[in-house]
Amino acid sequence: MEEARESADLQSLLDIVAEDMQAINRIILDKAVSDVEMIPELAHHLIDSGGKRLRPMLTIAAAKLVRYGGTGHIRVASAVEFMHTATLLHDDVVDESATRRGRKTARMIWGNQASVLVGDFLLGQAFRMLVEVGSLPVLKIMSNAAATIAEGEVMQLAAAKNTATTEDEYLAIINAKTAALFSAAAEVSPALAKQPAEEQSALKSYGKNLGLAFQLVDDALDYAGDSARLGKSTGDDFREGKITLPVILSFRRGSTEERAFWNRTIVEGEIKDGDLEHAIALMKRHKAIEATMDRARSYGAIARDALAIFPDSREKASLEKVISFCVNRNH
Amino acid sequence: MEEARESADLQSLLDIVAEDMQAINRIILDKAVSDVEMIPELAHHLIDSGGKRLRPMLTIAAAKLVRYGGTGHIRVASAVEFMHTATLLHDDVVDESATRRGRKTARMIWGNQASVLVGDFLLGQAFRMLVEVGSLPVLKIMSNAAATIAEGEVMQLAAAKNTATTEDEYLAIINAKTAALFSAAAEVSPALAKQPAEEQSALKSYGKNLGLAFQLVDDALDYAGDSARLGKSTGDDFREGKITLPVILSFRRGSTEERAFWNRTIVEGEIKDGDLEHAIALMKRHKAIEATMDRARSYGAIARDALAIFPDSREKASLEKVISFCVNRNH
Repeated sequence: MEEARESADLQSLLDIVAEDMQAINRIILDKAVSDVEMIPELAHHLIDSGGKRLRPMLTIAAAKLVRYGGTGHIRVASAVEFMHTATLLHDDVVDESATRRGRKTARMIWGNQASVLVGDFLLGQAFRMLVEVGSLPVLKIMSNAAATIAEGEVMQLAAAKNTATTEDEYLAIINAKTAALFSAAAEVSPALAKQPAEEQSALKSYGKNLGLAFQLVDDALDYAGDSARLGKSTGDDFREGKITLPVILSFRRGSTEERAFWNRTIVEGEIKDGDLEHAIALMKRHKAIEATMDRARSYGAIARDALAIFPDSREKASLEKVISFCVNRNH
Repeated sequence: MEEARESADLQSLLDIVAEDMQAINRIILDKAVSDVEMIPELAHHLIDSGGKRLRPMLTIAAAKLVRYGGTGHIRVASAVEFMHTATLLHDDVVDESATRRGRKTARMIWGNQASVLVGDFLLGQAFRMLVEVGSLPVLKIMSNAAATIAEGEVMQLAAAKNTATTEDEYLAIINAKTAALFSAAAEVSPALAKQPAEEQSALKSYGKNLGLAFQLVDDALDYAGDSARLGKSTGDDFREGKITLPVILSFRRGSTEERAFWNRTIVEGEIKDGDLEHAIALMKRHKAIEATMDRARSYGAIARDALAIFPDSREKASLEKVISFCVNRNH
């Protein structure tokens, strides 16, 4: 798919949230401040690195969808982004990643130790902002998300290098590590606006399924993407022995000989020149990338249907287009 | 000082909190549960390792001091302990520690990655419990503490191996990394019980100064303590190049030649056989351990005076004795 259509899918969301995102960017700068020099330096490295800020945009758009009239959504959305940033800092330590969004990771510049601690600081700041807003239902959603994300990361660590992981186990992992925050980001707004339970459930379901689709596409792109535009290298997951759906499907659909290949590379971590290319060829042979994208589209459809209870509006249309963006993006 | 007197100082607190601590121990077991096997395994390794649970005991005793009539203090105290446990897990990763309380650290058994993530999980669980209790003033105190502790840890990391650190800078570090949680642990109870602001300030000040005294004694014991009973090795701080008050004072009070020794060992990390013994000898020469203990007693006195506004009671007496315990302990 072309860049132009991809941007068009996100453009209507960008238009709707533009003004509030400026306020969020100011709060993010403000709350990353500390007398301890290393904190803003390290935090800004990641904050300024040109992430899309998709999660706080969901919070803002959902607030507008449910006609929330207050200002609390700005701080809540900022807290969502801080929680995400904290997770990325810890993820890069756990995955021993060297690059993110095309730049050196914070841990390569300031070290693992500082990345762990600044992540903790940002998580603390996220809760501080949520307490300032003062909505207990929002605090409940966000503290559940924080614990669930960590649980998902531990699950992923435990499943690493295990080719016996099933698709269901993989889904449980991405549900916790990725979809939980998408889900919380969308659900907090009706909770803050004290909307009826069914609107909260609808946006929770939308966020969850969008998050699943997003992560599935991410995992497909790691084998099929364009490195330069992705900002990370094709094959990172392969080199780290990470079990993602393209690997799970190729392993299950493969011959005994092919399974031996996956065990040597993913389990034993014994990777030779040409192995990544061979892995991608096996995925093509078994249509593993296509199947992963099919799953993503299927979750995207669930996300779309979750929004159906809302009357048509510009906001609803923009949230629907975000699904297309997530499913069709190539970086 | 003898073990007997030491125990006596803590005994009256132990008597007062005994029943509630049983409930807390049940909640701690309950909330460390997860379907992800590695989480309870790793969490229990630290939870069962025989820590004193001093911080939640402060919360309980403070609740009884202010005659709090509800049950929320149990969950709040459990959250205090979880926050502390999360900090220990991340600390051991940051300090690359091999032992804690005489046992292998979690990171030596399950790895740095799992320690980081399970720490994140426990912090998430702490906030979940606080949300269940539903007091925004308590959530405010605890979220401030979470961010401040992380800030203190980053400050300590930035000051590592820097012999130019002043006593004031060192105080700012231990104020954030240690005293903030002691302070929060004591302050949450009057906040929960909606007591007048002066009672909250008094217990906040008590906790802060008790925490400063506790950390100063900890830092003194690292050079003067009995390894076996301390559960960590004498000289850990020395080997890690950690700047603590005994080093700061010895450096400042020392000759040019002595400063060269501190720079070689602490800054350059070039440590030979006999260097730890020499460091301890220099501390004796300059009375650096005595001065550190003097400072601890001075903060202990401030903590004691902070309690003066409360009428005499068994609880008040037990909180006063905790100061003696912290100042006089030898492990």
